Parts: sequence; structure tokens; C-alpha cells
Amino acid sequence: MQLKALIISADNFEDMELFYPLHRLKEEGVAVEVASMKEGAITGKHGYSIHVDLTLAEVKPEEFDMLVLPGGRAPERVRLEEKALEIARYFFNENKPVAAICHGVQVLISAGVIRGRKATCFIGIRDDLKSAGARYEDKEVVVDGNLVTSRNPDDLYAFGRELVRKLRT
Amino acid sequence: MQLKALIISADNFEDMELFYPLHRLKEEGVAVEVASMKEGAITGKHGYSIHVDLTLAEVKPEEFDMLVLPGGRAPERVRLEEKALEIARYFFNENKPVAAICHGVQVLISAGVIRGRKATCFIGIRDDLKSAGARYEDKEVVVDGNLVTSRNPDDLYAFGRELVRKLRT
Repeated sequence: MQLKALIISADNFEDMELFYPLHRLKEEGVAVEVASMKEGAITGKHGYSIHVDLTLAEVKPEEFDMLVLPGGRAPERVRLEEKALEIARYFFNENKPVAAICHGVQVLISAGVIRGRKATCFIGIRDDLKSAGARYEDKEVVVDGNLVTSRNPDDLYAFGRELVRKLRT
Repeated sequence: MQLKALIISADNFEDMELFYPLHRLKEEGVAVEVASMKEGAITGKHGYSIHVDLTLAEVKPEEFDMLVLPGGRAPERVRLEEKALEIARYFFNENKPVAAICHGVQVLISAGVIRGRKATCFIGIRDDLKSAGARYEDKEVVVDGNLVTSRNPDDLYAFGRELVRKLRT
């Protein structure tokens, strides 16, 4: 059966952080769908656009095998959506893989799922990650159970490696 | 021994087409170096910058196991550099892997190495590829011997898959 990954983002996403995992997962034969608040397309900070496959309201999290949260300014918008937080909680409750990079962890902070977990993030929000109870590490990628996190676009090679490894386990 | 890949590009490269193969190869443990006309950094059409590891004049092609040519406007500048064309010819003479995406094949056209080869490229230059004697195919990725080509950033998942496969063979 074909695996399915869900990317949740919004306008002003970090372009590389959305497209790198998208293509990397497609390379593995994974079907990738993008969810956001509204139908249409979302556009990254650097001008790349991507079609929105489904609204957050339409997401059935049980249909997906992995959740990917790219960074940029988008997570500060996504974290205001209760449905996005419910989806994140579902993945943690079911111990399904969640991969967040850069500001992506802001969604996990708001979902209340990060306490006690080893994780990393963009350096500018590391104190918020710590305040939320996470065990912050300054590494290119941190894997703790179902959770894969990276700091910024320079880490994408390591983020990609670990999210693919997580899918296979 | 660690494999080494060489990316040749210049300002106004297509950002995803440079960074996707760069991270994908790093994920495989390949050392990736970026060469351009001048020292410093080059900046893509979408504003991403990357450090130039060595000038074209400094490149010793025998030190590298793969050549990657991203697209964007950069190849129209790179193809004017005789050293870049010599490097491309070296890789073809030695039957070492060459991966070109989008406008990247413009360098191969100018190097005179594309005649008789199956290849693809950005649709807007397909007639130039045909004029140069290549056997154009409208596919997400075309592999012909040492040569891997793709059409545009939407094909990166397939381009990455085949360039990694090519490194392993």
C-alpha cells in the first residue's frame, strides 16, 4: 500500500523546507498532500507556489502515515488553527512520524505535544521550545521516538535522511 | 573513499534545482562543491545564496565523481566559459555521471557532447536541444548512459532518484 504524507503550511512558508521533503518523499514513492486553511495555492517567502490539496477542515489524519511541518512565517499562522493542533496531537497519540523543521515546531508547541521530548528548531525560537518543556539540542537533526526535527534549510540533507528512515521503520 | 560531486552554476540559478541535488547528494554522504566564475557567493533567482567553493579555473575535474548542472538563467552565462565546457567534455570522455536539469543542458549543447544522446530539458529550449542533435524526450527524467536530465523543478523527485542511482552504479 502506498504511504501518504501530509504537509501542513500556509503563505510565507520557507520554500526549501516545504519542497525538499515533498520531493524527497515522492522519490520514495510516498504520496504527498498539502493542507492549509484555504483552497487554492500558498506561496513561500521566496516566491515558490504550491497547490493546496485539501483544507485543514477536510483532513482525516488517520489517512496519513507522516506529518511534515515546514518553517518560515507560516507556522505562526498555522498554530492558530485548532484543527491543525488536533492533527498534530493525533500523530503523537498514535506514535506516527512527525517531522518539523525551523519554525515548524511552533505548531507542536501550541499543540502541547513537545514537553519532555528531545528536539531542535530555528535558533531564534529555541527559548520558546525550552519554555514548552522540550529538551533542546543544537544539532542538524534530532530524532526522538516519532519526532524528527531540524534547525534550518542548511540541515535539509540530514532532515531528509531521517524522515525517510523514520518512514521505513 | 568519499565520493565528490561538482555543481557548476552562476548568479540567477534556479534555487530548487541547485539546492535539491546538493542536499540529496549530501544525504548520501557525497562531498559537494560549487564552482563558478568568481570567488564569493552566487545568488539564485529566488534569492537563496550559496558559497562558491572554487573558481572554474581552480577545478580539477579528475577529482570529482559527478557533475551537476542546475538551471535558471545561470547556464546561459556558464556556457560562455571555455573551462566549463572542458569540464563537461572531460566527464563525457571519462563516462562519469553528468546530471543536468532545465536550462542546465545549455552547457552540454555548447560543449558539443549531447549529439545522439537521449535527453530532456525545459520545454522552452527543447528545439535547441534537438538542433544540437539530441533525442529529446518529454519525461520527468531521462537516463542515457552517464547522462541524467530532467525538465524543471517539479521533476526534482525523479532527478534526485536517478542521480543517486547513477552514483551507486
